Amino acid sequence: MPQAGDFELATVSVPEPGPGEVLVRNVYMSVDPYMRGRMYDRPSYVPPFQLGQPLEGGAVGRVIASNGGPFAVGDAVLGTQGWREHFVSDGRGLRKIDPEAAPMSAYLGALGMPGLTAYVGLLEIAALAPGETVFVSGAAGAVGSVACQIAKAMGCRVVASAGSAEKVAWLEREAGVDAAFDYKAAGPGTRGLVAALAERAPDGIDVYFDNVGGEHLEAALDRLNLRGRVALCGMIAQYNDAAPPTGPRNLALAIGKQLTLRGFIVSRFAREFTPRFVADMARWVGEGRMRWTETIVDGIDRAPEAFLGLFRGDNLGKMLVRVGPEA
Amino acid sequence: MPQAGDFELATVSVPEPGPGEVLVRNVYMSVDPYMRGRMYDRPSYVPPFQLGQPLEGGAVGRVIASNGGPFAVGDAVLGTQGWREHFVSDGRGLRKIDPEAAPMSAYLGALGMPGLTAYVGLLEIAALAPGETVFVSGAAGAVGSVACQIAKAMGCRVVASAGSAEKVAWLEREAGVDAAFDYKAAGPGTRGLVAALAERAPDGIDVYFDNVGGEHLEAALDRLNLRGRVALCGMIAQYNDAAPPTGPRNLALAIGKQLTLRGFIVSRFAREFTPRFVADMARWVGEGRMRWTETIVDGIDRAPEAFLGLFRGDNLGKMLVRVGPEA
Repeated sequence: MPQAGDFELATVSVPEPGPGEVLVRNVYMSVDPYMRGRMYDRPSYVPPFQLGQPLEGGAVGRVIASNGGPFAVGDAVLGTQGWREHFVSDGRGLRKIDPEAAPMSAYLGALGMPGLTAYVGLLEIAALAPGETVFVSGAAGAVGSVACQIAKAMGCRVVASAGSAEKVAWLEREAGVDAAFDYKAAGPGTRGLVAALAERAPDGIDVYFDNVGGEHLEAALDRLNLRGRVALCGMIAQYNDAAPPTGPRNLALAIGKQLTLRGFIVSRFAREFTPRFVADMARWVGEGRMRWTETIVDGIDRAPEAFLGLFRGDNLGKMLVRVGPEA
Repeated sequence: MPQAGDFELATVSVPEPGPGEVLVRNVYMSVDPYMRGRMYDRPSYVPPFQLGQPLEGGAVGRVIASNGGPFAVGDAVLGTQGWREHFVSDGRGLRKIDPEAAPMSAYLGALGMPGLTAYVGLLEIAALAPGETVFVSGAAGAVGSVACQIAKAMGCRVVASAGSAEKVAWLEREAGVDAAFDYKAAGPGTRGLVAALAERAPDGIDVYFDNVGGEHLEAALDRLNLRGRVALCGMIAQYNDAAPPTGPRNLALAIGKQLTLRGFIVSRFAREFTPRFVADMARWVGEGRMRWTETIVDGIDRAPEAFLGLFRGDNLGKMLVRVGPEA
């Protein structure tokens, strides 16, 4: 587990935007579990962070100066240069967003990468069909909470697990899941989770959206129906393990049950799925079927704290750091 | 691990075939790893064997009497009533085979269910494409040896593991794999297997055909390339485990590498794939691309020994029990 002291807050001077460039003041920056993987020095689907260099991540901000750049002063933009208050850009990797259509922060959550992750995971990776029963772990997080509501909007039965009574209450009251449970209050180990699932989905589950790994995955394998699918989205339970975690001891069940487990990275699907995602989400938001909540930490100096809080489950909904005012 | 004493050889009288029935004398019966699963009293894709009742399994035999039944005396037939010398049948579940086209025993191996398992696993489950690199474990067995040769016929690079120097030699000399290794002679544990794979497939593997589970699966996950696929066919390494086995500790790699692991049961695909399988196999046999070998144990009294030998790796190629003469 990283410590706050592993992070350094550096004060540097921001250059003037050169010709064709803009200066952006960040408003919200995202902290996401996947960033933990970039803190190992190893080859992966995104390169590791470098010591002494700024971290990166999703952020929304305002253009505050332009030297003939591709955006106007006042424009709200979404990009990947979080973990800083200001930056200069030629516009590559930046996309203009509409703060009238949705709050700026939502473009980092339900309407952004986490929402698209839920969408791709359910529709493409797990091939979810109406009427099926879905189990979502980490269900009160940025991805999980959207996954629950997409599944509900598709006419599925949703069982959700989260790590506190408050989260469970939010899932039942706001996200509209059919049943939610506090996994910390279930019986011990995989057996406790299996019992919690069996009680809430007595006919088994057809799809498991895995944000957690570990015992959750094992319990889901136990309860999956014939030809069930697992979308392997994240395994936050083990990102900080010093020793190799135990794998699912019952993976052999996948043979007889003809299960499919499929890992995915949302970026690969972004181009193909974003248009449908945006259209579907706009409709679901308009119909009142899609709600989200955020846990906002103020000040870039507290960004490490917000990030580390993800692994303690401090967040209800999307965890964000507000690094400046919206307007 | 079952013991020979867990089996009983019962002598019963065989009834005369009734109207519309035939009497079949079995020639070869199959012993297969999947039968171990039917020795647990639990729900599964095939019902458990019952104490005091004859076991079942693939067998080929000769019709020796017919009372207006659907086959003629002398016909060779394939069915599922193995583990016995004779049986009476109304023909349901029996299929006439042509012993001129291929040896009777081959209908229980390369040209039968094990061969179809290899075919479906590679083509449908793993979506193997020409030019890819495939790793097959348990490669000298009935399924693995066909999988290796189908992959070669498709223009793939094949790395194979087996449990003895004799099997490795057969794979290299007869099955024509690009590289084979004796997993018992690799370094210890998953690390030894990873090193063996890295040496023989330095650019990684695209498809893993898993007959073994355990450390083999873990090593394959380590060496799989981006968007690699695993056909989960069998996990013979752990069928007799008294305690739950350890699962693959590195399953989280499936996320970043976007891997798909898919379990399957060949029976689900038999109807759809058998015509293509038969046509492709006939062509490959004709082209000299498909070879097989058998380990034949004589006498139904030695059937338990043959079955138990599967878990010790006693067989090179298909393990069969000869319960009577061919003609």
